[in-house]
Amino acid sequence: MIDIHDETGAFVLKRPSKFFPRRSWVSWLIGRPLPTADAPHQTIGKAVGLAVFASDALSSTAYASQEILMVLAMAGSGAFGYAFPISIAIVILLTIVTISYQQTIHAYPGGGGAYIVARDNLGEFPAQTAGAALLTDYILTVAVSVSAGVAQIASAYPELMPYRVPIAVSMVLFIMVINMRGVRESGVAFAIPTYFFLLMMFFTVGSGMFRFFTGSLGSVANPPTLDVEQIAGAITPFLILHAFSSGTAALTGVEAISNGITAFKEPRSKNAAITLLWMSVILGTLFLGITFLAGQVHAIPSEAETVISQFSRTVLGGRSILYLATITATTIILIMAANTSFADFPRLSALLAIDGFLPRQLAYRGSRLVYSRGIFALALIASLLIVVFQASVTALIPLYAIGVFLSFTLSQAGMARRWRKIGKLEPGEEIHERGSLLRFERGWKSKMWINGFGAICTLIVMFVFIGTKFLEGGWIVIVLVPVLVFIFSAIHRHYLGVSNCLSLDNYGPPPRIERCRVILPISSVHRGSLAALRYARTLSDDITAVHVSLDPEESEKVRQRWEKWGEGIRLVILESPFRLLLEPLLAYIEEVESHNQPDEILTIVVPQFVPRQRWHNILHTQTAFLLRLALLFKPGVVITDVPYQVE
Amino acid sequence: MIDIHDETGAFVLKRPSKFFPRRSWVSWLIGRPLPTADAPHQTIGKAVGLAVFASDALSSTAYASQEILMVLAMAGSGAFGYAFPISIAIVILLTIVTISYQQTIHAYPGGGGAYIVARDNLGEFPAQTAGAALLTDYILTVAVSVSAGVAQIASAYPELMPYRVPIAVSMVLFIMVINMRGVRESGVAFAIPTYFFLLMMFFTVGSGMFRFFTGSLGSVANPPTLDVEQIAGAITPFLILHAFSSGTAALTGVEAISNGITAFKEPRSKNAAITLLWMSVILGTLFLGITFLAGQVHAIPSEAETVISQFSRTVLGGRSILYLATITATTIILIMAANTSFADFPRLSALLAIDGFLPRQLAYRGSRLVYSRGIFALALIASLLIVVFQASVTALIPLYAIGVFLSFTLSQAGMARRWRKIGKLEPGEEIHERGSLLRFERGWKSKMWINGFGAICTLIVMFVFIGTKFLEGGWIVIVLVPVLVFIFSAIHRHYLGVSNCLSLDNYGPPPRIERCRVILPISSVHRGSLAALRYARTLSDDITAVHVSLDPEESEKVRQRWEKWGEGIRLVILESPFRLLLEPLLAYIEEVESHNQPDEILTIVVPQFVPRQRWHNILHTQTAFLLRLALLFKPGVVITDVPYQVE
Repeated sequence: MIDIHDETGAFVLKRPSKFFPRRSWVSWLIGRPLPTADAPHQTIGKAVGLAVFASDALSSTAYASQEILMVLAMAGSGAFGYAFPISIAIVILLTIVTISYQQTIHAYPGGGGAYIVARDNLGEFPAQTAGAALLTDYILTVAVSVSAGVAQIASAYPELMPYRVPIAVSMVLFIMVINMRGVRESGVAFAIPTYFFLLMMFFTVGSGMFRFFTGSLGSVANPPTLDVEQIAGAITPFLILHAFSSGTAALTGVEAISNGITAFKEPRSKNAAITLLWMSVILGTLFLGITFLAGQVHAIPSEAETVISQFSRTVLGGRSILYLATITATTIILIMAANTSFADFPRLSALLAIDGFLPRQLAYRGSRLVYSRGIFALALIASLLIVVFQASVTALIPLYAIGVFLSFTLSQAGMARRWRKIGKLEPGEEIHERGSLLRFERGWKSKMWINGFGAICTLIVMFVFIGTKFLEGGWIVIVLVPVLVFIFSAIHRHYLGVSNCLSLDNYGPPPRIERCRVILPISSVHRGSLAALRYARTLSDDITAVHVSLDPEESEKVRQRWEKWGEGIRLVILESPFRLLLEPLLAYIEEVESHNQPDEILTIVVPQFVPRQRWHNILHTQTAFLLRLALLFKPGVVITDVPYQVE
Repeated sequence: MIDIHDETGAFVLKRPSKFFPRRSWVSWLIGRPLPTADAPHQTIGKAVGLAVFASDALSSTAYASQEILMVLAMAGSGAFGYAFPISIAIVILLTIVTISYQQTIHAYPGGGGAYIVARDNLGEFPAQTAGAALLTDYILTVAVSVSAGVAQIASAYPELMPYRVPIAVSMVLFIMVINMRGVRESGVAFAIPTYFFLLMMFFTVGSGMFRFFTGSLGSVANPPTLDVEQIAGAITPFLILHAFSSGTAALTGVEAISNGITAFKEPRSKNAAITLLWMSVILGTLFLGITFLAGQVHAIPSEAETVISQFSRTVLGGRSILYLATITATTIILIMAANTSFADFPRLSALLAIDGFLPRQLAYRGSRLVYSRGIFALALIASLLIVVFQASVTALIPLYAIGVFLSFTLSQAGMARRWRKIGKLEPGEEIHERGSLLRFERGWKSKMWINGFGAICTLIVMFVFIGTKFLEGGWIVIVLVPVLVFIFSAIHRHYLGVSNCLSLDNYGPPPRIERCRVILPISSVHRGSLAALRYARTLSDDITAVHVSLDPEESEKVRQRWEKWGEGIRLVILESPFRLLLEPLLAYIEEVESHNQPDEILTIVVPQFVPRQRWHNILHTQTAFLLRLALLFKPGVVITDVPYQVE
């Protein structure tokens, strides 16, 4: 596998094993490194794709109904009747978004997240905005889903309530490790529980419906107390819109599939589109069913026991084995929902990095062919959020979904614009624009209207969201997105600047280096400094040894020994009245360098002590190392380390 | 002041200001840097010397009596009558030690601490033992004195009891800063409170004596409860010896003056000896007075209220202003007692460092001409001890004083041996032995007996100490001292090895470097890599550019561009199937280096990106920097950084 393209053909590597990564605790944790050639095989089918990409959207049924009720509770429990109509409005919105995204998936088989669609059709600034919005929301998805999962556990086992934060953080770390291993394994690990969740959920909702129609559905026994301050009778339009905004959390994650099309098996677009359809149907059905039944059993929204827990123990007859199975399944799907973000956040970061909006390191794949730096960053930030918001879903929800609706809007506006451009083409005509292929398609007009309508709907929802959630924490996202866009631009400007500076266009090579001056700092005269001198002599005849004098007696000794061993090389002694070592040396180097001619270069030859054992370093003043650090980022001066070792 | 000894006389420095340290928050905290030339002026007179060096010994009167009572309390309060006879025994021991040290001070005007005396007269191993014992004890002095000081505060203001640890640590840091400023200022800062303490103490003891003789001395009102488990009637010899050991804490610090003779004004020895005499007389008087009066007023040893506090509020009539003045003075002297160690610990560390038993950095003086690294280390370790032992004097005392008596014994045994050697000389004869001058002296025999007797007494006390305190924590010191001696030896061996390896004795210069191979790692072809190539061409004609291929397309681009710009230099492309950058490069370098001839040297020329702003570094993979780190400590390979910067 190792192939060294040596033009002379002379070089044969003796120890190719060195090209392989060493085994370590990291490879024990995340699996042995995968060679780059393995990359294309890591794709998934529809069934696994549903598990990997849809768990976010599906799992939001576990808290969306509750968050609607939580808002309505402010007007007293009499307002709970509005929950079901609000849910129907949300499912209509879901339908619009799904149809809109179906078109995106077919138009962008290479992955058509909001960022790419906005970049290709709207320009750089909207694309950066979409990117910032999505990154923010992926992080929140992790924090919200994991917090909601832990809330399920705490509903079944209230004694775990005080440990919510550490449990949640451990779960984030667990998901991180799973994702570091790579997408196929995470797909397998996540498929079984996703289907277990769907089974339990449909069973519970089905049983509930059966008992509702047979009239045997009772009310929640021992419901938790309503812990929201009530303002009885204040059912205002604002309250209804507020509840609607909270409920739209159910829509988050719908865009995940369109971002991750490349992870699907061929035919990618078709597989992804079918998966999206399945997902939306399941999501809508469950969400409506749960909201309806939660109302019928008079579930009370509370942080002490989730609505799902109240509803299922009522339907399934107390704390039965079926109840525990439902809660377990819900918990697991929520924890795994975070996985959607772990698939998407690193992928989007890599896209942004390749386009030069984020540090380039995010575009490099780790030992398991996944963007491990992005995975790590997501886990870190989400854990911080969980700690700051104490793993409370109700505290996190006002920050959530603003970014999603912003990106929905930009994505669909971009698609609408794309159809308009396509409409201007002749039948059969193809053009390339900003790296994307535009080809005439029949029915572009209706497709444009669908996407345009979707964009307008989601834009309105976003404004409703901002209007109702601003003071509760929504402002954080409103501030954060522009800040991120600003950072993206700053990074982009830097990369552009660097690439211009390094460009070889119009590059007239500077004159050859004709003269080389060497400065050789020595602390004393010994074999090490003489080895450095020996090397310095190969560079130039213009060598100056420099000694910083802290102690006149010591300096005199250096001078005498240099006279004997210094091979006639000039020695400069710098006095340092304040016992500083580096500063006089740096001042001297700067001085000499300022006299440099254009065809002349200054080299500092530093004798570098190499101890036999690492711990020995603490027994030596690391002057050479500190000098290196001080000079490393100094332009115009070449630094050379000549090692001398002690055996 | 700046003087550059350039043999050609040609070089004149333009910006000598660079030789001066910059002003910073550090110089705000500890004062502006002092030039080396200021060093000799930093000496002190007898009165200030007493304040600087004697505060440790004097302040131990604040807790020594209490610790005797604390042990006796185990046999019930009936045993308290033994406290005074035990104190008399301790004062006799003090007299022996003082006489013994008087002789040392005169014999060693250059500073005659136990370490030097043992080194010059007994050899390396006893010297290292003395050094380890003393360093341990200096640290404990800080921890015990500061804890005892905080106990005084908590006696007067019991509401501060829960904050003892943070108060104690803050005090250690305060003393650290004072000492970083340098000895003269710390002398001035410490003289006034020391004399204030002596005034208050003599006044309180004097008043107590007056009231005792006039019969008006009562008992402590509301004494604290005895918090030791009592075993009534068990007044065993072991208990008496145990109480005696605890009381010998009063003797710690007596050796401080002999270590610090060089800090005194001339005539050093005489000044130091007189100061030692004053100190011992004051110490003995106060210690006896306090123990006697504490018994008369029936003070109860307790961690809730110190014996000093009980005794002085009884003598001075309740919580009067005089009582508060006494407690304040006691607190301050205790806090300052720690200062003795801050004067001595860094000085002894520097001595050990110069002799190659501790890292050499401890021998360098900081900006204020003090051994700031030693000061910092002492503050750090003492703070840790305070945290671990929760600022409890009774918990710390079993560790304390073992080291002192070990060093007393070694010091006096060394002196005895020295007199014996002197006795063997002819009158008027002088010999130099191990850096110390031996001259015949009359009366050497009686001097030998005095020191010998002192050594035997302190040796016995040390064994009593170990026997009675071993299980309570004394074992920690018994283990620590040999461990420290082992570390000293390991460091010493390392320095000896290095100096042998670097020695120019029998140095036959190796052959001149005749051939130079250059490896030039490049990530892509741009102005930066071409600048490095330009430099590499000045080194050798045998240059190989090396590119690690992560992506075949990218590598092909590099190859094509190199063909155009590479000036015909050979390019090797290393494939890296696991997307590793450094490992293949290092394997290649190792391979090439293994073919080196003795007169050949391998140089790695690394293009080093220099960004305009430091934060830009996070936007670049620091491959060059990581490569440097990997190669820096690799023998046989020279590394050269050629900077390229972006404007």
